[in-house]
Amino acid sequence: MQPLRVTIWNEYLHELEHDTVAAIYPDGIHGALRQLVLERWSDAVVTTATLRERDHGLSDELLATTDVMLWWGHKAHAEVSDAWAEKVQAAVLSGMGLVALHSAHLAKPFKRLMGTHCSLRWREADEKERLWNLQPSHPIMAGVPDQFELAQEEMYGERFDIPEPDELLMVSWFQGGDVFRSLCTWQRGHGRVVYFRPGHETYPTYHDPHVRTVIANAALWARRRLTRSDAKSPRVTEFESVPNPTKEHI
Amino acid sequence: MQPLRVTIWNEYLHELEHDTVAAIYPDGIHGALRQLVLERWSDAVVTTATLRERDHGLSDELLATTDVMLWWGHKAHAEVSDAWAEKVQAAVLSGMGLVALHSAHLAKPFKRLMGTHCSLRWREADEKERLWNLQPSHPIMAGVPDQFELAQEEMYGERFDIPEPDELLMVSWFQGGDVFRSLCTWQRGHGRVVYFRPGHETYPTYHDPHVRTVIANAALWARRRLTRSDAKSPRVTEFESVPNPTKEHI
Amino acid sequence: MQPLRVTIWNEYLHELEHDTVAAIYPDGIHGALRQLVLERWSDAVVTTATLRERDHGLSDELLATTDVMLWWGHKAHAEVSDAWAEKVQAAVLSGMGLVALHSAHLAKPFKRLMGTHCSLRWREADEKERLWNLQPSHPIMAGVPDQFELAQEEMYGERFDIPEPDELLMVSWFQGGDVFRSLCTWQRGHGRVVYFRPGHETYPTYHDPHVRTVIANAALWARRRLTRSDAKSPRVTEFESVPNPTKEHI
Amino acid sequence: MQPLRVTIWNEYLHELEHDTVAAIYPDGIHGALRQLVLERWSDAVVTTATLRERDHGLSDELLATTDVMLWWGHKAHAEVSDAWAEKVQAAVLSGMGLVALHSAHLAKPFKRLMGTHCSLRWREADEKERLWNLQPSHPIMAGVPDQFELAQEEMYGERFDIPEPDELLMVSWFQGGDVFRSLCTWQRGHGRVVYFRPGHETYPTYHDPHVRTVIANAALWARRRLTRSDAKSPRVTEFESVPNPTKEHI
Repeated sequence: MQPLRVTIWNEYLHELEHDTVAAIYPDGIHGALRQLVLERWSDAVVTTATLRERDHGLSDELLATTDVMLWWGHKAHAEVSDAWAEKVQAAVLSGMGLVALHSAHLAKPFKRLMGTHCSLRWREADEKERLWNLQPSHPIMAGVPDQFELAQEEMYGERFDIPEPDELLMVSWFQGGDVFRSLCTWQRGHGRVVYFRPGHETYPTYHDPHVRTVIANAALWARRRLTRSDAKSPRVTEFESVPNPTKEHI
Repeated sequence: MQPLRVTIWNEYLHELEHDTVAAIYPDGIHGALRQLVLERWSDAVVTTATLRERDHGLSDELLATTDVMLWWGHKAHAEVSDAWAEKVQAAVLSGMGLVALHSAHLAKPFKRLMGTHCSLRWREADEKERLWNLQPSHPIMAGVPDQFELAQEEMYGERFDIPEPDELLMVSWFQGGDVFRSLCTWQRGHGRVVYFRPGHETYPTYHDPHVRTVIANAALWARRRLTRSDAKSPRVTEFESVPNPTKEHI
Repeated sequence: MQPLRVTIWNEYLHELEHDTVAAIYPDGIHGALRQLVLERWSDAVVTTATLRERDHGLSDELLATTDVMLWWGHKAHAEVSDAWAEKVQAAVLSGMGLVALHSAHLAKPFKRLMGTHCSLRWREADEKERLWNLQPSHPIMAGVPDQFELAQEEMYGERFDIPEPDELLMVSWFQGGDVFRSLCTWQRGHGRVVYFRPGHETYPTYHDPHVRTVIANAALWARRRLTRSDAKSPRVTEFESVPNPTKEHI
Repeated sequence: MQPLRVTIWNEYLHELEHDTVAAIYPDGIHGALRQLVLERWSDAVVTTATLRERDHGLSDELLATTDVMLWWGHKAHAEVSDAWAEKVQAAVLSGMGLVALHSAHLAKPFKRLMGTHCSLRWREADEKERLWNLQPSHPIMAGVPDQFELAQEEMYGERFDIPEPDELLMVSWFQGGDVFRSLCTWQRGHGRVVYFRPGHETYPTYHDPHVRTVIANAALWARRRLTRSDAKSPRVTEFESVPNPTKEHI
C-alpha cells in the first residue's frame, strides 16, 4: 500500500488565545493529531493546514493528493469561505476521506455533506464520558476495548440532527444523564465520512490512548479508495438497440 | 386527519416553449400533478408555484403551512435563488416532505439535502422503461403492481450519485441496457424526502395511472409528521449531578 | 381504516409465581398491554395468547388475521416450540407486524427474524433509566417528549447483537454507566419488526404513560400493510424477447 | 497481514451428473473458485469442502480457523444438516466472512442469517446479463468497470426477499426485462456477509475475469476482522454507583 497522505486541518485559535489550551496542546491540536497519525502509520505523509493561513492552508493540488483529511474547528466555522467549503465537499465526493472531530459537526464541509443542521445539545460541566463500542469487528475499532472512559469532557447530547449513519460504531454515556451517537460513518459519493465526538480543547482528550487509536484507525479506513479513473460520462450511447437514435435534449 | 396541504412547484418553461409538451400538459406539469393529487385525496389543499413568479411563487408562510412539496424542474435549476433553495431545505429539516420528480435530481433543494452531486447518465431514445416494485408492503406502493411499463421514456442510468437510500422501493429496467434506482426515500431532519424518476416532459408519463398512484401515495407518506413543538434547546442544564456547574464556552 | 387486529402474546409465568409481579400486573402483563392498546385504539380487536395454552394460544387462522403481534417472554423461551416460532416468523414475512418487548430479544421468532444471537449485557440494581428520543417526527414517537425517565428498571447494555436497525428511535441512559439501543425497527419480508427495551416484570413499567404511548404507536405503525395479494410467482416467462424459450432447470 | 484462510464449500453434484457442467468445471465449481482465489491472493490457504463428504467436509476446527467461506449450492440445500447450518451461522456471528454465490440465496446458513425467505423469480433462457457498478470506490469493486456483460446467464429477478442490504454494490439488467440486486453486503454479528448473483452451472461464469475479480475482492473484504478476544460477559457489575447491589434474576 502507498503511504497514507493525511491532511490535518485545524482552526488553531483556542491554542493561541487561551493558556489552558496552549498548555495541553503546545503544538496545537493539529500537532497532537499529527503525532498520533505518525505514531501509528510511521510512513504517512502528513500536511497541516490552519484557518488563517492563505486559503485556509488549502490548495486544489493538496485536496487532489490527500487520501484523508482530519478536521477540527469550533468557534470560527463562519470564517471558512464557502468556496473552500465547497471544494472540500467536492474532494470527498471524488474519493477523499473526511474525519470530522468534535465540534466539526458544524464545520461547513461536514454540514454540506450531511444536508442537515447537525445541531445537538451541549453542556460544559467537567463530567465523565464513557464511550461504548457497538461494532468491535469494525476496522476503526481495532484495538479499542468494549468501553472506555474520559474523566472529563464537554457533553454533547441527542438529538443530533444527522442523517441516519451507515454505521453507528460508538455511543457515549454522560454523567449528567445524556447519550450521544459518538462515532458514525457515512459514504458520500466516492468518499467516506467519519464523525468522532470527543475533543473539547480544554481537556487532554487527544492524549488519551483509546481516542488516539480510534482516530488513527479512522484515518486509514476512510482513505481514498477509488482505484480507477472515474471519468464522468454524463451522456451515453445505447448498449442495446433502442427505437430511435439518441436525441439532444430539447 | 387534517386535509393534506400540498404545494406543487414546477419550473413551467417547457410547456410554454414547446408545442409537443404543451399538447401533453395543457395546464402545465403542475396542473397534471395537481389533478392527480386531488383525484386521490379529494380534500387536499393544493397550491401551485412556478419558477418565474415573484420569489418562485414561494413565501415563508407557504413553506410553514405546507405538509408536502412536489418539485419538478429540468433546465433552469440555476434560476432558483440560493436563498429560496436554502429555505426549502430548512423547511424539510423542520418537517415538510419533499417529493423530487424526474430531473429534480439536480434541483438545488434536493442536492443540498443529499450532499452529493446527484449526477447520473441519460439518453433520449424513446425507449421502454419497466419499473420493478421491491417493497410491495410499503405505503407508497399501495395499489402498485409487481412491475409496470412506460412505453417511451428518457433513460436515466446508474451510477446515480446519491447517499444510499433509507429505502429503495423501485428499480427501473431500460430497453437500451441500463438500470436505475427509480424510487428512493431518505429521512432528513424531521422531514421525509422521496425521489421518483419518471416524468420527461415530452412523454405523457404523468397521465399513467401507476405513476399517478405512486406520486399520490408519496405525497401522503412524506407529509409533515411532527406533532409536537420542536423548540430548539441548544443548551441544557444537567439531568443528573455533575462535578461542576455548567460553564460558558470559553 | 379497518379496526386494528392485535394479538398479545405473553409468557405469563412470573405473574403466577411471584407475588410482587402479580401485584403490579393483576391481569397479567398481557392484561396491561391489552388495556393500553384499547385505551389508544378503542375499536381495536385484541386477542391474548399465553405460553402454556394449547399451541401457545396460537392458530394458523389467528396468525393470518392478526395485523400486529406484541410479544413478551423472559425465562421460558425454550418452551415455545420450533414449529410455532417458524410460523410466527413466516407470518411476519407475509406482512404481520411484530413488536418484541423487553426480554423478547431472546424470543425464538425475534431471533429467527434477526439472524443474530441478540445477546446483550444486563444488571438488576433498581437503577434509573432515561430514554432519549432520536426521531421525534417518527409515527412511533408521536406524543413522546425529548426524553423520559423510568425511576427503576433492569439495565440492558451494549453491545446488543442485532443487525443494524433500519431506524434507531430511542437510546437509553442508565444510572450505572451503560447505554442501549432501546427502540429499533426493521423491515423483514412484508412485515415490520419493532424492538422496545423497557418492561422488567418487577417494575410497573407498563403503567408508565410514555411507555404506553410508544407501545400503542408501535402497534399501529407495524400493522399489516400489504394491500394486494402477493401471489408467489417463482417462475416467470419473459417480458422481452430472449434467445431461447425458457428451459426447465436441469 | 496474515495469509487469508479461505474455505470453499460446494454442493458438487451438477458437475458429477451432467457432462455439460463437467466440461465447464472439470475440477468442480470449487476448483474454479479455488483457482481464482489463489490467482489473486497467492499466499491464501484454501480448503475445499463438499456436501457429501462426512459432515459436509466441515469441522469445528475448520470453522474456527476460516477467515472467509465461499458457498455454492443449488439443488440439494435440504441435504445440509440443520446442525451444520447452525454452526456456519454461528461462525459468521463470531467473525467469519461468508460469500454466498448464485443459488446459495437458498442455502440454509444464508437464510438463517437473513431471517427472510430469500425467494426470487428466475428463468433459464440463455439471455444476456449486464451488471452495473453502483459503488466504484468500494473495496469489492476494485478493478471492476462501470458495467460488464455476461453473454448468457440464468435470470434472477426481483422481488428478492432479503433484508435491505447495508450496501448495494451491483444491480443486474437482463435481456428479458428483469432487474436484480446482484451484489449486496450485510454485517451480522462480528461477521460480514456478501451475496453475489451470477454463477449458473451451465455457463462458464466463474471463468469470466470480472466475476473472478469480484469474488476474490469479496473474499478479502469479508475476512475475519475481530482482533480482540470477544469474551462474552452476559452479566455485568456496575460502572457507576447504583441504588442497590446487583441482584440475581428472580
